[in-house]
Amino acid sequence: MKKFLNSPDAILQESLEGLVGAHADILVAGDEYKFIRRKNLTAGKVGIVSGGGSGHEPLHAGFVGFGMLDAACPGHVFTSPTPDQIVAAVASVDQGEGVALIVKNYEGDVMNFDMAAEMTDGRCVTIRTDDDVAVETSTYSTGRRGVAGTLIVEKMVGAAAEAGMKRDDLKALGEAANRRTRSMGVALTACTTPASGKPNFELGENEMEMGVGIHGEPGRRRVALASAHAIAEEMVGAILGDLAPKRGAEAILFVNGFGATPLIELYLLYREAARFVQAAGVQPIRSLVGSYVTSLDMAGASITVSLLEGEAAKLWDAPVHAAGLRWGM
Amino acid sequence: MKKFLNSPDAILQESLEGLVGAHADILVAGDEYKFIRRKNLTAGKVGIVSGGGSGHEPLHAGFVGFGMLDAACPGHVFTSPTPDQIVAAVASVDQGEGVALIVKNYEGDVMNFDMAAEMTDGRCVTIRTDDDVAVETSTYSTGRRGVAGTLIVEKMVGAAAEAGMKRDDLKALGEAANRRTRSMGVALTACTTPASGKPNFELGENEMEMGVGIHGEPGRRRVALASAHAIAEEMVGAILGDLAPKRGAEAILFVNGFGATPLIELYLLYREAARFVQAAGVQPIRSLVGSYVTSLDMAGASITVSLLEGEAAKLWDAPVHAAGLRWGM
Repeated sequence: MKKFLNSPDAILQESLEGLVGAHADILVAGDEYKFIRRKNLTAGKVGIVSGGGSGHEPLHAGFVGFGMLDAACPGHVFTSPTPDQIVAAVASVDQGEGVALIVKNYEGDVMNFDMAAEMTDGRCVTIRTDDDVAVETSTYSTGRRGVAGTLIVEKMVGAAAEAGMKRDDLKALGEAANRRTRSMGVALTACTTPASGKPNFELGENEMEMGVGIHGEPGRRRVALASAHAIAEEMVGAILGDLAPKRGAEAILFVNGFGATPLIELYLLYREAARFVQAAGVQPIRSLVGSYVTSLDMAGASITVSLLEGEAAKLWDAPVHAAGLRWGM
Repeated sequence: MKKFLNSPDAILQESLEGLVGAHADILVAGDEYKFIRRKNLTAGKVGIVSGGGSGHEPLHAGFVGFGMLDAACPGHVFTSPTPDQIVAAVASVDQGEGVALIVKNYEGDVMNFDMAAEMTDGRCVTIRTDDDVAVETSTYSTGRRGVAGTLIVEKMVGAAAEAGMKRDDLKALGEAANRRTRSMGVALTACTTPASGKPNFELGENEMEMGVGIHGEPGRRRVALASAHAIAEEMVGAILGDLAPKRGAEAILFVNGFGATPLIELYLLYREAARFVQAAGVQPIRSLVGSYVTSLDMAGASITVSLLEGEAAKLWDAPVHAAGLRWGM
């Protein structure tokens, strides 16, 4: 295992210390690093809290900041945060207007966030993300998995909360954004968790896992490595087949790296994806290209299309100042 | 070779098409993709042009935009751009106030940018970057190599040009920023160029290349894989030994990934680096953590310390809107 670390047990705490140290202008850590919080909350706002297993950085702690999340609860690598962590985060950011929890659809996350919601006496509403079209159920999920589209839901909900939207409306807005957002991924290599020190699945020299999940869970099928053109065709086809957009629709096109894929390849994949999206009569009027929702050191990428209706483009464009996403300020 | 591509010959052009497509609000391509240019130049400003071999994305084309570069000339992977490309870029951005060229110290780049400067009849001044303390000469350079610190020089010079500084003063400012900026890198794996399809050097399972260059050139020595703590100690020690900062100095601390190293590890390495920097009496008052000056799919990282004197912090903080670096707008 070739990683920058001191000991596998300490990777999470030490990485979070680095995150908070590097971004001390915007972030503080909660007690015992149960959560990472905005240094300054916007007065009177609904709190927005997310979280999940670590290993997907910058998701979620890197999206804490003005215009996005108020707090994120990092579990150990690929392990859900505990209800105790989530309750502490909720208590830290609730200003009387309640809290919206944004939860990727994995059984452990759903269970622990639901338990925390129960423990906080009706202060929380929950927005679940399940944007992955690759498989209908999976190793860790009943129903579709929440993957890179979660970033888009967090951005939209965070912007609306910043503009003063109330809790129940934020839930409706987040759920609508999730329904308009679909993703699919492909792995060229497995990832290696610090605890095991070994790749978490086997892929041959000329194989790829089409439809892979962000923990290396199996996808649709293992196939021979194909051109970027053919990969984009299959992924965009699956996404648009599910979304069934009207011709003339506008969208965010998000090409996301899984951690070990460099930008020169992600932009090439963007080119291919944009062509297939446009050929289907959808205009990618906003774009995001980079490694935002990762799987440790996995080589691979996902494509996300999020249809822009109503105020969605305005919410996407609204200022954000997080460690991992920043514009307009 | 496991990469998102269609054919090794087409990777550069297709990736640039993706870049310009994804960022059509700020970027346009020159004829035959000789250069990538800002869509809207700031009227009356000195032009800022950089470039070099591809494979280091987002450097340089990803730094074209308001507050940074006016144009970047991408050579093929790890290959200098031609004088013809540079001359075309200069002609495209010169508004009568001349152009400052920012050139990493590699023999091919230096030769071709110097030739272009000669061909443009005194319109250009040249700022050379050579921030790598690892080795004094190298495979492709006479004298030290220009590496991740180049981003900092481009940001400072770009901000000063935006504020109206003239050509000769920009040269002096850029050279001063380069002198105050020092870097060192380490590779955990080699990188694979699309043309060869094979790793460009061999590293054992428990080896790392300390002081590696951004093309996989040899560094100081090949050693056993060490802890992040020990790696940061050696790199920060070499950097500060060379910079010899006064106690109480302020700095940018920049931890840069080489392409295949995920953010969870880079933030952990930042934590270690910050401790050694602070122990030497230097305050890292600004930070940058991410993969900005890369070596294709190499796993590894570099550390850069840039001392902030005079107006440097203000120039660093000034608004920038490029594909790969954005804040304040």
